[in-house]
Amino acid sequence: MPTQLETAMDTIIRTFYRYSSKEGDRFKLSKGELKLLLQQELTEFSCQKDPQLVDKIMQDLDANKDNKMDFNEFLVMVAALTVACNDYFVEQLKEKGK
Amino acid sequence: MPTQLETAMDTIIRTFYRYSSKEGDRFKLSKGELKLLLQQELTEFSCQKDPQLVDKIMQDLDANKDNKMDFNEFLVMVAALTVACNDYFVEQLKEKGK
Repeated sequence: MPTQLETAMDTIIRTFYRYSSKEGDRFKLSKGELKLLLQQELTEFSCQKDPQLVDKIMQDLDANKDNKMDFNEFLVMVAALTVACNDYFVEQLKEKGK
Repeated sequence: MPTQLETAMDTIIRTFYRYSSKEGDRFKLSKGELKLLLQQELTEFSCQKDPQLVDKIMQDLDANKDNKMDFNEFLVMVAALTVACNDYFVEQLKEKGK
């Protein structure tokens, strides 16, 4: 029986492939697939309003410049968002003086 | 309502703090806390049999050499394990010729 942490890691992998396999190379996210993933899976991140968001993310994270996002590039994005969430979480804790 | 991916990111954060707050600096994992986390939360990773595992991980990931693991160092570990799982997952897919 996988633990919560193992399930979380598995979810990150499965979410990637749920979108990357929609069209073209199923081991990579196209811009369209990335946009859909952001809209449907990262709804909490209000910066969604920025129409240039997908281009900016692709530009920053598309290490091999093939205009697609492979799993490792995707994981860098998820990790960066998780760090941002953690920073916010710690800030809240410290403000509450916990 | 958070999505599965957002819940996964939240789980990674909460798992870290569930162990880091057991003793000493509650924003960092001591060796003892890391060992407990590995044993209880990463049970699938059979390399657990290696008694030196905790030392090796701490040595590799303790970027600021304070003999403790902060959240970002922990996330690097989780990301590395997730990449390893993904590589295995892709290998299986390709072997099955899917």
